[in-house]
Amino acid sequence: MIILIQCDDKVGLVATISNIIAVAGLNIVFMREHVEKAELRFFTRIEADGEFDADILHQLFQSALPNGADIRINPMPDKKIIVFVTKEYHCLGDVLLRNHFKTLGATIQCVIGNYNLLEEVCNRFDIPFHYITHEDNTKDAFEEGIISVVRQYAPDYLVLAKFMRILSPDFVKHFENRIINIHHSFLPAFSGASPYRQAYERGVKLIGATAHFVTNNLDEGPIISQQIIPVTHAYALTDMIRSGREIETAVFARALQLVFEDKVMVYKNKTVVLE
Amino acid sequence: MIILIQCDDKVGLVATISNIIAVAGLNIVFMREHVEKAELRFFTRIEADGEFDADILHQLFQSALPNGADIRINPMPDKKIIVFVTKEYHCLGDVLLRNHFKTLGATIQCVIGNYNLLEEVCNRFDIPFHYITHEDNTKDAFEEGIISVVRQYAPDYLVLAKFMRILSPDFVKHFENRIINIHHSFLPAFSGASPYRQAYERGVKLIGATAHFVTNNLDEGPIISQQIIPVTHAYALTDMIRSGREIETAVFARALQLVFEDKVMVYKNKTVVLE
Amino acid sequence: MIILIQCDDKVGLVATISNIIAVAGLNIVFMREHVEKAELRFFTRIEADGEFDADILHQLFQSALPNGADIRINPMPDKKIIVFVTKEYHCLGDVLLRNHFKTLGATIQCVIGNYNLLEEVCNRFDIPFHYITHEDNTKDAFEEGIISVVRQYAPDYLVLAKFMRILSPDFVKHFENRIINIHHSFLPAFSGASPYRQAYERGVKLIGATAHFVTNNLDEGPIISQQIIPVTHAYALTDMIRSGREIETAVFARALQLVFEDKVMVYKNKTVVLE
Amino acid sequence: MIILIQCDDKVGLVATISNIIAVAGLNIVFMREHVEKAELRFFTRIEADGEFDADILHQLFQSALPNGADIRINPMPDKKIIVFVTKEYHCLGDVLLRNHFKTLGATIQCVIGNYNLLEEVCNRFDIPFHYITHEDNTKDAFEEGIISVVRQYAPDYLVLAKFMRILSPDFVKHFENRIINIHHSFLPAFSGASPYRQAYERGVKLIGATAHFVTNNLDEGPIISQQIIPVTHAYALTDMIRSGREIETAVFARALQLVFEDKVMVYKNKTVVLE
Repeated sequence: MIILIQCDDKVGLVATISNIIAVAGLNIVFMREHVEKAELRFFTRIEADGEFDADILHQLFQSALPNGADIRINPMPDKKIIVFVTKEYHCLGDVLLRNHFKTLGATIQCVIGNYNLLEEVCNRFDIPFHYITHEDNTKDAFEEGIISVVRQYAPDYLVLAKFMRILSPDFVKHFENRIINIHHSFLPAFSGASPYRQAYERGVKLIGATAHFVTNNLDEGPIISQQIIPVTHAYALTDMIRSGREIETAVFARALQLVFEDKVMVYKNKTVVLE
Repeated sequence: MIILIQCDDKVGLVATISNIIAVAGLNIVFMREHVEKAELRFFTRIEADGEFDADILHQLFQSALPNGADIRINPMPDKKIIVFVTKEYHCLGDVLLRNHFKTLGATIQCVIGNYNLLEEVCNRFDIPFHYITHEDNTKDAFEEGIISVVRQYAPDYLVLAKFMRILSPDFVKHFENRIINIHHSFLPAFSGASPYRQAYERGVKLIGATAHFVTNNLDEGPIISQQIIPVTHAYALTDMIRSGREIETAVFARALQLVFEDKVMVYKNKTVVLE
Repeated sequence: MIILIQCDDKVGLVATISNIIAVAGLNIVFMREHVEKAELRFFTRIEADGEFDADILHQLFQSALPNGADIRINPMPDKKIIVFVTKEYHCLGDVLLRNHFKTLGATIQCVIGNYNLLEEVCNRFDIPFHYITHEDNTKDAFEEGIISVVRQYAPDYLVLAKFMRILSPDFVKHFENRIINIHHSFLPAFSGASPYRQAYERGVKLIGATAHFVTNNLDEGPIISQQIIPVTHAYALTDMIRSGREIETAVFARALQLVFEDKVMVYKNKTVVLE
Repeated sequence: MIILIQCDDKVGLVATISNIIAVAGLNIVFMREHVEKAELRFFTRIEADGEFDADILHQLFQSALPNGADIRINPMPDKKIIVFVTKEYHCLGDVLLRNHFKTLGATIQCVIGNYNLLEEVCNRFDIPFHYITHEDNTKDAFEEGIISVVRQYAPDYLVLAKFMRILSPDFVKHFENRIINIHHSFLPAFSGASPYRQAYERGVKLIGATAHFVTNNLDEGPIISQQIIPVTHAYALTDMIRSGREIETAVFARALQLVFEDKVMVYKNKTVVLE
């Protein structure tokens, strides 16, 4: 049983929560908590062995915890996702493989692409591919095309695997903390377009990638995972892009794993990653 | 208040412990726990705000927890250490600086060296230096010299900052889990003498350093911290040694910080680092 | 044009080599050299723009350089490889994807597996899979099965993508410096079987992976690439294995890239990686 | 003998240069070159064994190489530096130690501080400390105080070891590519004031440090070295600052080593690091 709780902090929360779990006859095998002192906000993630009715457990927590506590028990046990792509295959290929070998921690329902270049590889894995072009299309019509596919599948998460279009505020709001993007730089450096060109021109000695939840402030959503690799003066722009792909794939995979294992909680514009 | 507990695992331990803390009117601001499933062993580290009598708290825990529980409350609040050196300055210099600026988390009482090369730098920081040579000396007489200095200071920890002599089993036993060594390789690779030469001859692409508690199995005590840096074919042996010093200094500093902040618990031949 | 030269070191080699290149009207756009001083051995890798007959260039170098110089011009321009697997998909999947999208730098001719679990994914990419079981088979008969497949394809490199069988000395000798293996530890730590179990039991704080050329000393061939990731006490053995797979895939991909771009030279039991 | 050359690129430069070295009877033991293709700019760094008149060698290169070639032979063999500080000890302490043990690759002539907090530690190492306050002082008077000290010592490099004042354009211009600063973030992220606060508020998962040459665009000079360390949600601002100090010290030491070993060349706003 996975239990995620966030609420305002107060004395005795751990005792309150662990007592309820003991009363339910569950055995805590993993527990992490974090208090964001600047916000007086409490976060915990618990794995407990044993059987107990989830609804009753939810009620027990709700009565005992401060008003407005966010309590999640076994959230989305069988996660379903849609992957969004443009032209690059590396992040998509990686999740297709993991999905195929059942190590992704979620099930890919379909892939949506604004180009049709990656339809072929999706076919090889028997994953439906929906080609929705943004060309010869208003922004509204393009997004309506996307919405109609998304509605059909009712996914838990939307996963942007190098999807190079910006989604509308309404769309993003509807999927709050459920759209995960990989940005090809160590944010907040080089937000916006062509981060590798920016990095090349600045002469940096490290390049990075950032996986984050999408909000309506471009490239400014809560960061889930980041990593970097060293580069040198000898890297041409194309070398940076090529090396960058490796780190993008790794960071993206790591962020999806954390999210799909229910280890990421969001508060304001930050994540608390309890692993 | 810092509370460290390790004991056999059983259902309800977190509730038991957090209830006692709540009853004592203390507020948990940090709590980490770990269950080593293979050993059915429970570990926790708690930081709690508030005032309460430490002896009574200890008794409350002792009555409530399984027999043989190891309970430590505010262990060694003002840690005192002796630093052991041979010829190399880098780890010693780093701890002298931190000690001088009061960021070490412990107080250096004195330095013991089996050469007198580093006496001069100790003098600059007004730290007593005891020169005890192993030359023209039996192993027993050498160690008796050390023991008589150590007895005089009664330190909490002995810190081997590139000390190139092996201490006797009796000596080590007396300071169980209280002697910290920096080994100049990524253990268990290249244990024993001349690890950089071994690494050079093997043609590795990474070199590392390992900080560990000293036991009577050479280079096999519980590991506290490890780190590596990349090297290439272009590194001569002397380059590896030079680069290695940087990583030794960093790993040693990191391990001391963890130990001095009471974040390291030992069970059998492993550490549990709760930070 | 790619030019790789290794020979005994002597004064004026760079002038000799660069003069020949200038005489041939070629423009050096990349040049790296290394002198292994302990061995008095010279290595260089040159990329030069322009057209010139490779055979004549080879003769010019041969006349001018010390006897026994190893000179390679545009070695294996269109590399062909066979991938060997056992049960795990992660390294295979990664190279299948890169092969499919033509970013591998080599062409997979077929896959040989001593189990048939990965045949299905090879079929999805239209790559022939040869199932050669070691069960109910003498070691000799097993290897003869492999040899007959290998003979049929005449590959440039054999790539062991988590292949868990040991090849015979004769076989290995025949493919000197042409068999690349990924070992699931930071060699020389934890060579041999079950490295993750060894690492878990030792309580290390880092785990790693090593890509190396296969020789007849098990896990002791020239190292091409190594990398590590941090782990903690909280990692169960299964967590280490899972995290290890990520780093194995990354190190393997990196080593293959270096080899397929002709950036790796071997001398005695070490590699010189000129990039 | 160390030879650094940068000039416009053209065919045959390596042959031209290596011929001159062979004619002079010198043996190349290390050579790196880089062609910045976008700029058609050639860079090389050569270490050669043997004796030859440096002035004549310079003339030989000058006659043979394109106009405007920047040729340096054994640049500043005995480097002298002034260290600038404000209040923080960690970077200063590290260079004081290295200077004391003659592993810095340069000699500290004096330390200039705009606070007098670090005078005491300088005294311990017999390094003159000049306290020049910016308080109760116009910016001009403050800088004149600095200039008069600098003039007295005629240093090769000015090393800003967490110096928190901005130097005037005239001052910076006078020391072009000879002022090295450590910035406490992974530039270009978090340039300007309070980078750790910015990083904390953004919720990044990595923090970094950047060593760069100072130009008149704040925090935008050529980058010499960068590195990062991971952080988590559990890091309070003070934890980030503390961890950041470790990485600042390491990056600063690394950058100084590269510069003092004449491995860094500057062109426009980038460095070419030939090691």
